[in-house]
Amino acid sequence: MSGIIVNGGSLPNIPWEDRPSSGTGSDPKKDIMWRYSKNPVIPRDLTLRSNSIFNSAVVPFKNEFAGVFRCDDTARHMDIHAGRSKDGINWKIDDEPVKFIKNNPELPDSDYKYDPRVIWIEDRYYIIWCNGYNGPCLGMAYTNDFENFYQMENPMMPYNRNGALFPRKIETNGVRNYAMYSRPSDSGHTPFGDIWYSESPDFIYWGKHRHVMSPNGGWQSTKVGAGPCPIETTEGWLLFYHGVLTSCNGFVYSFSAALMDLDKPWKVIARPRPYIINPREIYELAGDVPNVTFPVASLVDKDTGKVAVYYGCADTVTGLVFGNISEIVDWVKKNKI
Amino acid sequence: MSGIIVNGGSLPNIPWEDRPSSGTGSDPKKDIMWRYSKNPVIPRDLTLRSNSIFNSAVVPFKNEFAGVFRCDDTARHMDIHAGRSKDGINWKIDDEPVKFIKNNPELPDSDYKYDPRVIWIEDRYYIIWCNGYNGPCLGMAYTNDFENFYQMENPMMPYNRNGALFPRKIETNGVRNYAMYSRPSDSGHTPFGDIWYSESPDFIYWGKHRHVMSPNGGWQSTKVGAGPCPIETTEGWLLFYHGVLTSCNGFVYSFSAALMDLDKPWKVIARPRPYIINPREIYELAGDVPNVTFPVASLVDKDTGKVAVYYGCADTVTGLVFGNISEIVDWVKKNKI
Amino acid sequence: MSGIIVNGGSLPNIPWEDRPSSGTGSDPKKDIMWRYSKNPVIPRDLTLRSNSIFNSAVVPFKNEFAGVFRCDDTARHMDIHAGRSKDGINWKIDDEPVKFIKNNPELPDSDYKYDPRVIWIEDRYYIIWCNGYNGPCLGMAYTNDFENFYQMENPMMPYNRNGALFPRKIETNGVRNYAMYSRPSDSGHTPFGDIWYSESPDFIYWGKHRHVMSPNGGWQSTKVGAGPCPIETTEGWLLFYHGVLTSCNGFVYSFSAALMDLDKPWKVIARPRPYIINPREIYELAGDVPNVTFPVASLVDKDTGKVAVYYGCADTVTGLVFGNISEIVDWVKKNKI
Amino acid sequence: MSGIIVNGGSLPNIPWEDRPSSGTGSDPKKDIMWRYSKNPVIPRDLTLRSNSIFNSAVVPFKNEFAGVFRCDDTARHMDIHAGRSKDGINWKIDDEPVKFIKNNPELPDSDYKYDPRVIWIEDRYYIIWCNGYNGPCLGMAYTNDFENFYQMENPMMPYNRNGALFPRKIETNGVRNYAMYSRPSDSGHTPFGDIWYSESPDFIYWGKHRHVMSPNGGWQSTKVGAGPCPIETTEGWLLFYHGVLTSCNGFVYSFSAALMDLDKPWKVIARPRPYIINPREIYELAGDVPNVTFPVASLVDKDTGKVAVYYGCADTVTGLVFGNISEIVDWVKKNKI
Amino acid sequence: MSGIIVNGGSLPNIPWEDRPSSGTGSDPKKDIMWRYSKNPVIPRDLTLRSNSIFNSAVVPFKNEFAGVFRCDDTARHMDIHAGRSKDGINWKIDDEPVKFIKNNPELPDSDYKYDPRVIWIEDRYYIIWCNGYNGPCLGMAYTNDFENFYQMENPMMPYNRNGALFPRKIETNGVRNYAMYSRPSDSGHTPFGDIWYSESPDFIYWGKHRHVMSPNGGWQSTKVGAGPCPIETTEGWLLFYHGVLTSCNGFVYSFSAALMDLDKPWKVIARPRPYIINPREIYELAGDVPNVTFPVASLVDKDTGKVAVYYGCADTVTGLVFGNISEIVDWVKKNKI
Amino acid sequence: MSGIIVNGGSLPNIPWEDRPSSGTGSDPKKDIMWRYSKNPVIPRDLTLRSNSIFNSAVVPFKNEFAGVFRCDDTARHMDIHAGRSKDGINWKIDDEPVKFIKNNPELPDSDYKYDPRVIWIEDRYYIIWCNGYNGPCLGMAYTNDFENFYQMENPMMPYNRNGALFPRKIETNGVRNYAMYSRPSDSGHTPFGDIWYSESPDFIYWGKHRHVMSPNGGWQSTKVGAGPCPIETTEGWLLFYHGVLTSCNGFVYSFSAALMDLDKPWKVIARPRPYIINPREIYELAGDVPNVTFPVASLVDKDTGKVAVYYGCADTVTGLVFGNISEIVDWVKKNKI
Repeated sequence: MSGIIVNGGSLPNIPWEDRPSSGTGSDPKKDIMWRYSKNPVIPRDLTLRSNSIFNSAVVPFKNEFAGVFRCDDTARHMDIHAGRSKDGINWKIDDEPVKFIKNNPELPDSDYKYDPRVIWIEDRYYIIWCNGYNGPCLGMAYTNDFENFYQMENPMMPYNRNGALFPRKIETNGVRNYAMYSRPSDSGHTPFGDIWYSESPDFIYWGKHRHVMSPNGGWQSTKVGAGPCPIETTEGWLLFYHGVLTSCNGFVYSFSAALMDLDKPWKVIARPRPYIINPREIYELAGDVPNVTFPVASLVDKDTGKVAVYYGCADTVTGLVFGNISEIVDWVKKNKI
Repeated sequence: MSGIIVNGGSLPNIPWEDRPSSGTGSDPKKDIMWRYSKNPVIPRDLTLRSNSIFNSAVVPFKNEFAGVFRCDDTARHMDIHAGRSKDGINWKIDDEPVKFIKNNPELPDSDYKYDPRVIWIEDRYYIIWCNGYNGPCLGMAYTNDFENFYQMENPMMPYNRNGALFPRKIETNGVRNYAMYSRPSDSGHTPFGDIWYSESPDFIYWGKHRHVMSPNGGWQSTKVGAGPCPIETTEGWLLFYHGVLTSCNGFVYSFSAALMDLDKPWKVIARPRPYIINPREIYELAGDVPNVTFPVASLVDKDTGKVAVYYGCADTVTGLVFGNISEIVDWVKKNKI
Repeated sequence: MSGIIVNGGSLPNIPWEDRPSSGTGSDPKKDIMWRYSKNPVIPRDLTLRSNSIFNSAVVPFKNEFAGVFRCDDTARHMDIHAGRSKDGINWKIDDEPVKFIKNNPELPDSDYKYDPRVIWIEDRYYIIWCNGYNGPCLGMAYTNDFENFYQMENPMMPYNRNGALFPRKIETNGVRNYAMYSRPSDSGHTPFGDIWYSESPDFIYWGKHRHVMSPNGGWQSTKVGAGPCPIETTEGWLLFYHGVLTSCNGFVYSFSAALMDLDKPWKVIARPRPYIINPREIYELAGDVPNVTFPVASLVDKDTGKVAVYYGCADTVTGLVFGNISEIVDWVKKNKI
Repeated sequence: MSGIIVNGGSLPNIPWEDRPSSGTGSDPKKDIMWRYSKNPVIPRDLTLRSNSIFNSAVVPFKNEFAGVFRCDDTARHMDIHAGRSKDGINWKIDDEPVKFIKNNPELPDSDYKYDPRVIWIEDRYYIIWCNGYNGPCLGMAYTNDFENFYQMENPMMPYNRNGALFPRKIETNGVRNYAMYSRPSDSGHTPFGDIWYSESPDFIYWGKHRHVMSPNGGWQSTKVGAGPCPIETTEGWLLFYHGVLTSCNGFVYSFSAALMDLDKPWKVIARPRPYIINPREIYELAGDVPNVTFPVASLVDKDTGKVAVYYGCADTVTGLVFGNISEIVDWVKKNKI
Repeated sequence: MSGIIVNGGSLPNIPWEDRPSSGTGSDPKKDIMWRYSKNPVIPRDLTLRSNSIFNSAVVPFKNEFAGVFRCDDTARHMDIHAGRSKDGINWKIDDEPVKFIKNNPELPDSDYKYDPRVIWIEDRYYIIWCNGYNGPCLGMAYTNDFENFYQMENPMMPYNRNGALFPRKIETNGVRNYAMYSRPSDSGHTPFGDIWYSESPDFIYWGKHRHVMSPNGGWQSTKVGAGPCPIETTEGWLLFYHGVLTSCNGFVYSFSAALMDLDKPWKVIARPRPYIINPREIYELAGDVPNVTFPVASLVDKDTGKVAVYYGCADTVTGLVFGNISEIVDWVKKNKI
Repeated sequence: MSGIIVNGGSLPNIPWEDRPSSGTGSDPKKDIMWRYSKNPVIPRDLTLRSNSIFNSAVVPFKNEFAGVFRCDDTARHMDIHAGRSKDGINWKIDDEPVKFIKNNPELPDSDYKYDPRVIWIEDRYYIIWCNGYNGPCLGMAYTNDFENFYQMENPMMPYNRNGALFPRKIETNGVRNYAMYSRPSDSGHTPFGDIWYSESPDFIYWGKHRHVMSPNGGWQSTKVGAGPCPIETTEGWLLFYHGVLTSCNGFVYSFSAALMDLDKPWKVIARPRPYIINPREIYELAGDVPNVTFPVASLVDKDTGKVAVYYGCADTVTGLVFGNISEIVDWVKKNKI
């Protein structure tokens, strides 16, 4: 059997709906993942001053759920807010953004923060986001309680976005390093973008940068970027990733999933030609940025293989889709380029 | 008490709805202005050949209301039509555009006209709009009856848009001049734009140009422009103005309000970080130009402080929002940058 | 009486709805064509792997209907699929794209295919489409049964799109040639485009290229391109064509119809200022490419003058509008520029 | 006889060289104007900190010559310096930029100054230049002695460059106004530009803006702008003006001369197809901006019709060309478009 | 022995200089072709009104030489002039452009003409150039005497440049057709461009378009285009072609030569990595368009293998380089990519 | 006394010419550095296949000099060649590029290499350059003999250029790290660019990225980048750096020098408004990229304070300028912004 989840725990309370009996098209089976019936799961104005809540990350936390949320306020300032939920569906998000604790005064400032990912590694939760420090680059922090967040060194220089940390160290020739995917970019609405892999012994210094994958036509012809932190399976790292197509009227963000080598995660085992989710619901087609479906977090239940992916919709609200890890792994291999 | 309307009359028949009991977000109080429940107040095809009716201006007129309306016809030609209404809600707009009377044959021609503002100054109504004369510049005319419109000299050279006249003269060092805000631009879909102030002794020659305000991040990071003619209050001139943010998929037009010095209207007293209204209804998100809310006219009732703002929606239809002058003035001061 | 269909047969089973009693605007008569009440007539996911079905062409076929359909799959790869229908409304489209038979190994390859037109000339159906061969150019094929399609030489070099063949030869000075309209372009989302006319003695070699018409302001200010194959009437060739306007947020595709000289089809008899159809329904305003109405096929009934035009909506689904040839011809002449 | 100078005095000491016996081409007569044999007349580093001296203006002054010079310093900051010369050839330019005296504290600031023109009107010398005040706009000042310069109001809003004042008032319907040509632009390296005409009763307020002329193909296909202040002749105002052509490697600035109506100077009497001077010497082809010849000042001798035009070369040094007013007037009429 | 000229005659009076004893670099042998010591061979102002003479084509004619020359006049209007020379070095070029005789009134007009090639085929000289007819496309004409030129149909639709005819018909499967290379482009300073091959039975209708070669890095990374008409050798067609590299300061035009299959000239036998000639002399580096060396004509002597290539320099003057066909053929094969 | 060289040795054979008695301008003292009288010191075609040799780095080596040189070959392929010289003036550069030895097969490939810097740190020479690995990023290697070069990990992800290593470790809070300046960029001719500082314990992993300095108007308004490796003086690190101004005809590269804090080299002590060297000689104004002076290497003599800077000229040849460290340090402080 394929696609057994390796690194992850039981999550019996994962938010969930079974696959609907009819798909969106001619064949009920054609949708490998399906939308939550009450999408958007998080509305745009859940907090006091929010203009939009999207591209947000959640994790299991003390038998419930916690997360860090991109909330643009009504000044359209971008920041990260913490939130909690009993069921992963109904969220209470703080009205005030996270105030990161800076133990070293030389740590860089941050003009804005967006698109956070969160993951448990070893002994704490690590947050990684796109940080405004003389241009978009990656910012990092850790927390144990989603109340106190400790700022770390920026891992990379500008211009870089879409950092996704691995849940465990990667060992090469006896060296065990932390690892991440990220996407070098430019200072604006970058019209190109590849996924890269980097390692670090200590989260401070990074190196051994390897190119992972480039745009490849169709829905992923302009740029690609890592979504949620990769999921370890028996078949390889399963990476949800977004791709962008440029129409005459702008970018279209869809997403799919790829399988990466367990030991050398910069090597692609299988990458599909089709997307899994693309903008087709009205809350994905219209909003602050039309035509965006952008995954940033996943919850998985090791026992059942269930996966729930949170994704930003039209840069305005947060959506939720469901699937099964082993079905997705099979589909990726079957549809590989 | 703040924000008493100074220059303006009683308008007991101002179009009006009270603030709804629940806001659009978590807090019913968070919306400083609220939409008319039957928006769009003016549909796109109200006249015989109109493709769209938006960015249009209205004034009290003989106990009822009159206005000048941007009607793009089905050739997408832009022109100004006159209209009347008993209640400011139900409008009768002329099928034919205004034919401006030109008493001087040397007055410039006009290839197109759009985004009119209208205001009563001293003894007549003045109309100011974006006029196509070798590029977009400002055009002016006056009327007493909304039937005969007399063309005046173009006040400015190209490229200039969003002219908003003051309802009375401004006095500096004993010199009393007419005044306006406007926004220098380029010949296309200008990706920049500041608000400027100018004076004239006679509406023919203009000078003493002063820079007023620039883009300032977030929703107002690409350009800003004056909306309706400024409203005189005890706290300063209240100016509704639009701001533009550039996403990867184009411009997003929101609007807010600022307070300007009564004697030196080129000095900003308070300018808020947040917008008041942004595109979030489907008629604002989808249309000929997605994601536009663009204010061009206001009605105010001196007795109650009520204000009704007409604004273009998606460059397709006209919307209406309500608020209270003193609340808005307080909010502007409280939220100043 | 004007606008009698000359070249075409009886089509009593043409898909049809009568004009609704009220138009979309103030005057029920103002809409010269009207939408099918159950639009979109073809949904985006009718085939197994389709992302979208639009810009597709149909013809009468053995008392029923057949067609070639642009189906982008969920990889956003563009290809042509064949389909059949009894009524022109309910379609069965093949899940697999057409596999073109290539009798000459030197015939160029094709990276992708889109926007097909189809027409009966003399003894068979000819298909013409935009073909990916080192850039977008025209591809051609013929079929007799919509099962076997035979690839022909590409008629033009890149960069060229929107080819529309004439249903019969055109005679000039005793020379009788096949003819087409097409639109030279560039290699991307071309921001310009005129309609041209070309002739060929044999569908292999083409020449006598003549410029036909350029953009002309308003809805047709950026580019224009032929839609369905021209319809022969007593008043001239009736050509549905699309036009593009560039707003600050992208292209807007509308369409109208023009009358061309019967003997010298590169001469325009009448071309209207207004569009006939523009994006205003939600399935035209939102989708993979917002704000697109793009005609590619028409069915006509010689006996009644009825015409049904299939058009792509938002590059996602297929719409259908109805009209009457003689009314349209009159309207074109009355509204000529 | 054509082209008699009307408004201007005797200038027997005008810098001068006779036409060389052989032209640059096949016909010694083909050059209507000819370069000073020791060009560049002003080198780039004449002052202590100058990077370049070009686009500079001179006038007769107390039997000698004075001028205002665009000197970019080695920080590439642009400013205006005053200078004197006995012969118009050998110049002493101040090392420090002009410090303009501002009698009104509300007068706008200036971030930079460039491309000055200077002219005597009635009782003093007026300087007009491109002034950095929230973008490029026109700045004005006057002087009587080229030692004290008094700043005036900016005559126009941004974005505007290439202002050229008329040497006397223009009368229309009994109204006598000062007048100028200028060129509305955008905030950068503007890729368009027409010449406009404006009037003012007092140099403070300006209006009656009239479009004068647009680009017209060839060397003047991208933009045109007024050069030196217009020269009054019996045949009309003679206006030297620059035109820009955009090659694949950037702008090319050439210049020519046009004749304008004496009473309505916004009407063009004759405008030539050819340029008079274009970049062909190495100091015009290479420098801070390759391929620029840009006229900003002229000296004329009423008695002989001699004219000497100072022009910027490659935005680096100043060149000088000679000609005869009546020959130029004849040539303009003969070569009119 | 390689590279024997097949199609061509004796040309003992070919303009010629022997290879200089020292090359431009460390090795006297490294230059495969060498410049004429008195370059530029044709100055910019040889005719009465010429601004520049470049990108011009010559042929042997009645024991002397004739040619068609791109002469931009001082309005920067582009046109073709005829010229004669006894030695190929000293030219007499007509002051007036060629007036093409149009025997069919329906033949397209021409707004401008540039970059002509000329070649003898069967019984006359054919001229092909870039012709302004609603954008740049190819124009054609023939002459027998370089006095009377007869206009033909434009062979291709816009946008197309750099047409180079073959000196004889190409036979495929028993069909013998005329043939040409050309380069599809866009309407401006095209930033892309491949060489294509097309055939025609009669010079009127063209088809069987085949892609030949694309840009390929380095000096030929932006676009490539055919230069002079191909030269038939025992090793294949020898095609001089230009390539463009885009630096931060614009296009750089270099040229080299490739070998094409004799029977299927759309197949490349050998194409070199290095250029042969690039801009390095001052008349190539500075001028109306800096950094251009652009070949358009060659003279060959069948007896000696000598070749003289005329090329445009900086879009301003005409240069001449010399080489030996068999050396060039060897070099192309040795340096193939 | 200011500006004593701290880290560096005696270099009595430094290439040298005394300051000429007259400067290029009005004051012989105004040039803080002066050009070698026989510039360019390295011609474009010194090696067998070189198109150009520029942006190249040299160091003292065994009482003579060695270096790594950017040699673009005649295919315009960019690579690094080693070279030796007895006097720093006359160079012997290898005809073949360096073949880097790769001891780890996972080390990234390199499509091209350009703009190398070289410096001695502790026990060997380190080379750093712009390396083509899925876009421009930094590449590193070391050598002891300029014969064997050992490739190291790429220190940074794309897109990054202009890396300049420090000659010794920097200590902060007891941590001693290697350090470098670099300039994040985009994938093309980047129109922006700041200098950043990074540290590494081992040359493999890098972090503690700090922003150093941004563009600042005038000659340095578009981007800035480190030049040669910083020179340690008693007053701080002296950093030669280039700046770019964007004219309407492209980039202009000038250079100057700044003083940085010895302990916190990301803090700027003094940065001048003026440039030191800008393009004004013909070999700097014309070439493969006009208007470039780009410093990449310096030689210093600790005993005399002499400094010789090698800089690329027009991306074609290599120039040399001379100066005195203490004079330069004084000038930087005196001219600070």
